[in-house]
Amino acid sequence: MSITRPRQGRPRHTPPSDPGASAREQILDAAGALFVERGIASTSTRMIAERVGIRQASLYYHFATKEEILAELLATSVRPSLHMVERIQALVPERATPAAALYAVAAMDARTLCRTPYNIGTLYLLPEVRAERFDAFRAERGRLQESYGTLGALAAAEGVARSVPAERIGELLIQLVEVVIQIRRSREPQAADTDVIASSCLRLCGLGESEVAAARDESRVLLSRWV
Amino acid sequence: MSITRPRQGRPRHTPPSDPGASAREQILDAAGALFVERGIASTSTRMIAERVGIRQASLYYHFATKEEILAELLATSVRPSLHMVERIQALVPERATPAAALYAVAAMDARTLCRTPYNIGTLYLLPEVRAERFDAFRAERGRLQESYGTLGALAAAEGVARSVPAERIGELLIQLVEVVIQIRRSREPQAADTDVIASSCLRLCGLGESEVAAARDESRVLLSRWV
Repeated sequence: MSITRPRQGRPRHTPPSDPGASAREQILDAAGALFVERGIASTSTRMIAERVGIRQASLYYHFATKEEILAELLATSVRPSLHMVERIQALVPERATPAAALYAVAAMDARTLCRTPYNIGTLYLLPEVRAERFDAFRAERGRLQESYGTLGALAAAEGVARSVPAERIGELLIQLVEVVIQIRRSREPQAADTDVIASSCLRLCGLGESEVAAARDESRVLLSRWV
Repeated sequence: MSITRPRQGRPRHTPPSDPGASAREQILDAAGALFVERGIASTSTRMIAERVGIRQASLYYHFATKEEILAELLATSVRPSLHMVERIQALVPERATPAAALYAVAAMDARTLCRTPYNIGTLYLLPEVRAERFDAFRAERGRLQESYGTLGALAAAEGVARSVPAERIGELLIQLVEVVIQIRRSREPQAADTDVIASSCLRLCGLGESEVAAARDESRVLLSRWV
């Protein structure tokens, strides 16, 4: 792991985003940049090692294959939200209304997607990610979607809850929050985007403006006190 | 264009989806399958020609590069909806309420995405599609998004129209309809999905259940009479 020899081989294309990062973090960072810029098939472990400024052998000490790197990158885009949603769901209904919990989850998830390096959510649809070795990622995203469905169905106005099954609500809500991935392709997301997205999730469940406002206020207390 | 010599070269991997299709259509079909299965970088014009069962020279008669094929595939996924939205928008407000027009556009767009060969919407996020040569596709998707924003802002309840700018509404609505692309990755979309998606678009704009139901009924008349 001689990241102390950064000029080994060709010079790195770009400096690492954080010079204090560990070798492992630098590898993930460089791989994220290359996968998003060039696609997966056109990125090799040699290119990743060169971009970090380490030898390929040093990269293999941390990751056996580029697919292993990709699996970890995908996990970082969904796992924080999954942990969060499980903690927030546990507060319903004693300490949080479903609407406030849904607002909080959508806002936290949107913020996570705002911060993924190189907007790696753009990799979700790549054909390579359908392979079995990414089952773990897809299972985690599936659990997140299920939680959206559960919270959405609990929060939903009667007419919506009656006409839209929880599974469909989950599909729609996770998709709505993932608009962050599209936004980041054309502009920098703003703090206001998070509120618009979380509020839209509640409106999609049939909640009116006063209910949306109440859930927004309650979610702030919720996030500062319990999460 | 000797598609009359289908056994030239290696046998095709799969039969074309429609044996009566023109050579051009068969090339688009084969390319769509390969791009979605393998990604763009890993697909060559030679592979596309082999899959159709024609010589590479015959393929070049129709398309100069694989990027030209991709550009046409992307266009087919957005252009029908764009034509539709422009016709429907022209009916507002004299012959259609904004809510009914939005319902009709979302439903038609969802149906278009249900039918794209090989779910080619999965290519939207590929790094290659950011290249300049796909500006025309991105401009068309941008116009569709803008129309969603215009119709959404007109249809929106007062509280939503006041707090969410039309551009943001457009981003959210087009994203919501594109859930079809995600759905098709795991299951076959049903007719009911179209209604759930179009209704969700109206709810996201702050419309209540009776307004959603009225817009749905009106959109049926609209689509059968005017479009």
